[in-house]
Amino acid sequence: MATTVPQTRYAPLVILLLVAALVTVLGLWALDRARGAAAGESSEAAAAFSETFHWKLVTTWPKNFPGLGSGAENFARYVKEMSAGRLTVHVYGAGEIVPAFEVFDAVSQGVVDAGHGASYYWKGKIPAAVFFTAIPFGFTAQEINAWVHYGGGLELWREAYAPANIVPFAGGNTGVQMAGWFNREINSADDLKGLKMRIPGLAGEVFAAAGGTAVRIPGSELYTSLQTGVIDATEWVGPYNDLALGLYEVARYYYYPGWHEPGSMLELIVNKQSLEALPPDLQAIVTYAARAANQDMLDEFTARNNAALRELVDEHGVQMRRFPDDVLLRFWRGSESVMRELVASDPMAAKVYASYKSFYDGVRSYHHISEQAYINARDLVLDSDAP
Amino acid sequence: MATTVPQTRYAPLVILLLVAALVTVLGLWALDRARGAAAGESSEAAAAFSETFHWKLVTTWPKNFPGLGSGAENFARYVKEMSAGRLTVHVYGAGEIVPAFEVFDAVSQGVVDAGHGASYYWKGKIPAAVFFTAIPFGFTAQEINAWVHYGGGLELWREAYAPANIVPFAGGNTGVQMAGWFNREINSADDLKGLKMRIPGLAGEVFAAAGGTAVRIPGSELYTSLQTGVIDATEWVGPYNDLALGLYEVARYYYYPGWHEPGSMLELIVNKQSLEALPPDLQAIVTYAARAANQDMLDEFTARNNAALRELVDEHGVQMRRFPDDVLLRFWRGSESVMRELVASDPMAAKVYASYKSFYDGVRSYHHISEQAYINARDLVLDSDAP
Repeated sequence: MATTVPQTRYAPLVILLLVAALVTVLGLWALDRARGAAAGESSEAAAAFSETFHWKLVTTWPKNFPGLGSGAENFARYVKEMSAGRLTVHVYGAGEIVPAFEVFDAVSQGVVDAGHGASYYWKGKIPAAVFFTAIPFGFTAQEINAWVHYGGGLELWREAYAPANIVPFAGGNTGVQMAGWFNREINSADDLKGLKMRIPGLAGEVFAAAGGTAVRIPGSELYTSLQTGVIDATEWVGPYNDLALGLYEVARYYYYPGWHEPGSMLELIVNKQSLEALPPDLQAIVTYAARAANQDMLDEFTARNNAALRELVDEHGVQMRRFPDDVLLRFWRGSESVMRELVASDPMAAKVYASYKSFYDGVRSYHHISEQAYINARDLVLDSDAP
Repeated sequence: MATTVPQTRYAPLVILLLVAALVTVLGLWALDRARGAAAGESSEAAAAFSETFHWKLVTTWPKNFPGLGSGAENFARYVKEMSAGRLTVHVYGAGEIVPAFEVFDAVSQGVVDAGHGASYYWKGKIPAAVFFTAIPFGFTAQEINAWVHYGGGLELWREAYAPANIVPFAGGNTGVQMAGWFNREINSADDLKGLKMRIPGLAGEVFAAAGGTAVRIPGSELYTSLQTGVIDATEWVGPYNDLALGLYEVARYYYYPGWHEPGSMLELIVNKQSLEALPPDLQAIVTYAARAANQDMLDEFTARNNAALRELVDEHGVQMRRFPDDVLLRFWRGSESVMRELVASDPMAAKVYASYKSFYDGVRSYHHISEQAYINARDLVLDSDAP
């Protein structure tokens, strides 16, 4: 009994230890359930909104470049604000991750998520790409925006870039550019002969066809090249961007109109996998942030070009010149010839050209009675009524 | 002892019950902590993203109206996509909640959250409002976009609307409009005498000053009014929107250029409290959705106007006419006179005019060497080289 009495005495202890253990286990189980339930209460929000994305975007411009550079900066800011930081886009200038002209490959290969530049830089890889920046004597900003967004242009652009694993968006516009800075006056088409001008892309081919020598050098070397006489002339953008480069110190004449780039559209390019990894709302934010940044750049150039031009003319003594008609006509004929070669050389370029040309003929015809008719009538009455 | 033995025997039971109770209390406390921690893990997401907002937006256009009506529809769609449904905007056409011309008051008083229309409809309440739609012989679309977003225009617009508890955003643009549909040819300024034309706003005052009779009737009555001869002429928008109204059936001549509305900006207006009730990311989504919708409308009109014009001319036999110079000059002088009266009558109108005029002079001067110089040079070479 001596052994049984303690057994009886400790039986409640054993039972209650078991009960305590059970309570603890139940408590832990309940705790786990509770944790799950609490998380479940905001599971939809958590699933949709807790994931964050960080993109690297490389530009073909230097970091913090005004004008052209604002396209990527505005895009990044709008995305961050609209996504409450769920998608952040870090903008790297040319050379920080890859050189300017390797932006396309870096985005294509997923080295980075996105890029900002101009499609005509990739003409060597994709001949059709030139249509999505500017064509000599082609679309104005209003016209290319309409073609890209409501005329089939964007679909063709995406088709052209699809093999490279890249999704393009319109990413800004300079408006009509200036024809460039010259150290020699151009009084007739004969004066183009032997002229060394920095002028890239299709326009460079046109310039060469017109008798000049087209040179390709990066923007950072323009000042020195003009100063040392390596080139006689260069095009860049327009007064607001050109003033910043100081070109007025090394060139005398500032020519217009910008026949070669009458409404250059910039591009935002995105790696396809980076884009598709985003939930639909962030994809939409990317789309409309780009759309807003696209308009913003044209607004900014339009607002700031005139003040910059006044500074160039009034403070720095820049002399404005208009190209004589025969020079423009020489450029036009060269453009037609270069375009024929381009279209003959590449089926995709031919396909995009057909869409471009049809839209161009229609919108040019319409602008005869709308934008163009108005802006000329406005001058007619204001100037005829001037004191 | 009989009483003490049970006490001694049940002492472990009491102690262990107390232990069990303690374990249970600790378990519940831990459970509560765990629930709090689990909620905390997604607290940021839950707080920021779980609340949804539903806005009512009333337009001055009929429901599903093409062109002008797309501004509100696109805005609502972009907001929904970008917010993943956290902010939905239900668009009501004119008359569904309030009549067209009560949109401003409905937004001001918080009857609805937002509205879409044109600022010059509110000229009777806010004389300065006319500057944010169109001024006769004033800004083109590109110019007003630049002034509003980079030239101080938006800040003035917000100042003008602040007393009404309304925050305005740019909400679309028609581009240069057509001057209108006429049943009489206008061969000189004298032909304006006694002409009854539906033409609202400042332009209506100009038309009256030029000898005509300006009539105000809603768009829905234009067809019948022209048909019955209640009016001799009407302006509306441009080919794409005008074709839909069928005006070609009741008017013979289609006049250009649209001196009276050379780049009409539409507006998105938002009740201040409705906007401020949104978290910052949804406010940003509203801002950039409006910016994107603003560009979209111009793109759509630019893309569709020419096809509509071809249909009007080629299939419906509409006759195109340009206003003679002396008619345009008469309108211009009338505009100057009406503008002087407006500015003299209202300090805020005078303040906005000063900003408008300074920007206008600069951008018009710049466009002499850019947009205008280019678009005219383009014609010069293309037409001189035509076969």
